[in-house]
Amino acid sequence: MGLTLELIRGARARIQDKINRTPVLRSTTLDTAARAQLFFKCENFQKTGAFKARGATNAVFLLTDQEAQRGVATHSSGNHAAALSRAAALRGIPAYIVMPSNASEAKRAAVARYGGQSTLCEPTLADRERTCERILAKTGATLIHPYNDLRVMAGAGTTAVELLESVPELDVLLCPVGGGGQLAGVAVAGKSIKPSLRVVGVEPAGADDAYRSFNAGHIIPSVNPQTIADGLRSSLGDLSFAEIRRYADGIVTVSEEAIVRSMRTIWEVLKIIVEPSAAVPYAALLEDKLGVAEQRVGIILSGGNLDLDQLPWSRVRQ
Amino acid sequence: MGLTLELIRGARARIQDKINRTPVLRSTTLDTAARAQLFFKCENFQKTGAFKARGATNAVFLLTDQEAQRGVATHSSGNHAAALSRAAALRGIPAYIVMPSNASEAKRAAVARYGGQSTLCEPTLADRERTCERILAKTGATLIHPYNDLRVMAGAGTTAVELLESVPELDVLLCPVGGGGQLAGVAVAGKSIKPSLRVVGVEPAGADDAYRSFNAGHIIPSVNPQTIADGLRSSLGDLSFAEIRRYADGIVTVSEEAIVRSMRTIWEVLKIIVEPSAAVPYAALLEDKLGVAEQRVGIILSGGNLDLDQLPWSRVRQ
Repeated sequence: MGLTLELIRGARARIQDKINRTPVLRSTTLDTAARAQLFFKCENFQKTGAFKARGATNAVFLLTDQEAQRGVATHSSGNHAAALSRAAALRGIPAYIVMPSNASEAKRAAVARYGGQSTLCEPTLADRERTCERILAKTGATLIHPYNDLRVMAGAGTTAVELLESVPELDVLLCPVGGGGQLAGVAVAGKSIKPSLRVVGVEPAGADDAYRSFNAGHIIPSVNPQTIADGLRSSLGDLSFAEIRRYADGIVTVSEEAIVRSMRTIWEVLKIIVEPSAAVPYAALLEDKLGVAEQRVGIILSGGNLDLDQLPWSRVRQ
Repeated sequence: MGLTLELIRGARARIQDKINRTPVLRSTTLDTAARAQLFFKCENFQKTGAFKARGATNAVFLLTDQEAQRGVATHSSGNHAAALSRAAALRGIPAYIVMPSNASEAKRAAVARYGGQSTLCEPTLADRERTCERILAKTGATLIHPYNDLRVMAGAGTTAVELLESVPELDVLLCPVGGGGQLAGVAVAGKSIKPSLRVVGVEPAGADDAYRSFNAGHIIPSVNPQTIADGLRSSLGDLSFAEIRRYADGIVTVSEEAIVRSMRTIWEVLKIIVEPSAAVPYAALLEDKLGVAEQRVGIILSGGNLDLDQLPWSRVRQ
C-alpha cells in the first residue's frame, strides 16, 4: 500500500486549520530572467518556518487517543524536530526529540520554543538509535520518522494540492530532494490531480544519491554528502523512493555555486528569507537545466530557517 | 493648500494598477512578545522594493503630456531614484538622476535597471545642486523632490488607505521618519479616515531632527546624523513638517541597538528582508516606548533594499 491522492486529501482536511495556507509569490524580474512564468510556493512562511509542519501535524493527529497520550518521538534535529514539537503541543502530548550533542544552539532553541523535550546523544548513528530505542521503550511513544512515513509524506503532498488550486494551469513543479518525503508527496499529488504536470526533483550535485538512485532503479545511499543545503543530506527512504520512482518525471542536480546564487537572488528580488535547501529548485533554472521557456513553473521554497550569522555569500562573492 | 484625503484618494486611483497592493503579515510569536496585535504592512514587497514607488508614480502621472515629454529629475540616490526611474519608464519618458560619485554600485545598478539616466556629481550639496540645475536648464525636466512635494506625499499616504481597508479596527499606526514625506502622507490619510487612530513617527535617536523639531514647533535641521538607517538621515521639509505638526500624535526615538535587533527579529520570525530604516518602527515596541498593550498596531515596513554583504549583526552579536 503506497501513497494515494486520497491519503493526501485526508491529510489536507485534517491539518488545514492547524497550518498556514502559504502564499504564492511572483516576480516580473525573475520571470523575465527565466523567460517563463514562475510561481513560488512559500513554505518558508509555514508554521515553524518549513513545510515539515504539514507532515508532522498529519502524523500526530492520525494517532488514536491511546497512542497519542504516550507521546511522539523522533531523531531529527532540524525542521522536523520543531514541527513535531509544535504538532504534539497542539494535541497536548509530549514530543521526545533525540539530537546529537553537537546540534546547534538554534536547533535546540527551536525545539524548546515549541515545547519539545530534547535528549542529547553522541553524534553517531549507533548512539542515536540506541538513545531513541531507550526512549521509546521507556515511554511507549510513537516514532515519527522525518520522511520515510506515509503519514508524513501525505502531509507534505498537501503543498502541491494547494498550489494546483491556486495555479491550475501549472506545467512544471520543482521540489528539493533530501530524504525524498516531500518529492514523493508532491509527485503523487501533482500527477494524480494533473497527469500532464511535469514533476522534477532537484538535488545538490554534492549530495546526489537520489539522482543516482533514480537512474539506477535502486537506492544508493548518501555517503559523505558535501553541500550547504543541510536539509538535503539524508539518504532516500524505501517508502519515499518507491513513490518517486513511480511518479516523478526526473531528478536534476545543481552546483553549490548555483545554490548560493539562487538563495541570494531570492533574498534580493523576492525580499524573503529562504534556507539553502529551499534555494535548490530555483538553482536549476539559473543553470538552465530544465528547458522550461514559456512554461508555468511552480517552485517549492521549502523553508526559511538558518543561522543569520553564517551566510554563504562570502564564499562566492562576485 | 496642504495635503488632503482627497488628494490621497486621487493618488490611489491614479497609481493602483501601476503598483502592488502589498500584503499585511501577522505573527503569533511577535504578537505574544508585544502583548498586542501587530499588522505589518509590507512595502518591502512594493515595486522597486520600497514605498517610494507610490509617490514617484503619482507625481509622474500627474504631469501634463507637455511637461512629461521633457522628463523628470531628482537628486536622490536611494529608493526614490529607482522609483522615479521606474515610473518614468512606465510613462515612456526620461528620468535624470543626479547622484554623488561615491554612491554604491548597488544604487547605480538599481537606477540603470529601471531605465534611469545617472549623472554623477561631487559628493557635496553645492555640486549636487549645481549639477541638478544644469540638467533642469538643459532638458526642461520637472524636478520631483524625494519627499517635500505634495504629489509624493499623497502617494505615500495611499499605504495607510490600503492598511485601514484591510484592518479597519486599527488603534495605532507606526511609521519611520526621515524627510517626513511618508509620515505626513499616512498621518493625513490615517487621521482623516479614522480620527481616533493614533499615528506615531519613529526615528533613530542618532538622527532625531524630527523628534526635536516636533517638540520645538519649528524645523531643526539634521546635522551629522549617525544611524544605520540610511533612509532616515534627511532633514524634514517644510511641506512635510507642516502636515506632521498638524496630524501626527507624536514622534519617539529608538536606539541603534534596538534597530538592529528589530531588523534581525523581523528577518528571523517573519522570514522577510527589510532594510534598517524599515525596522525602526518595530524597534519602538522592542524598547516599549509606546504603551500599546492589547491594542491593534499597524507597522509600516517601508522597504527591503540593502547590501547583503554588509549586514549589521556582527556589531551587536548577542
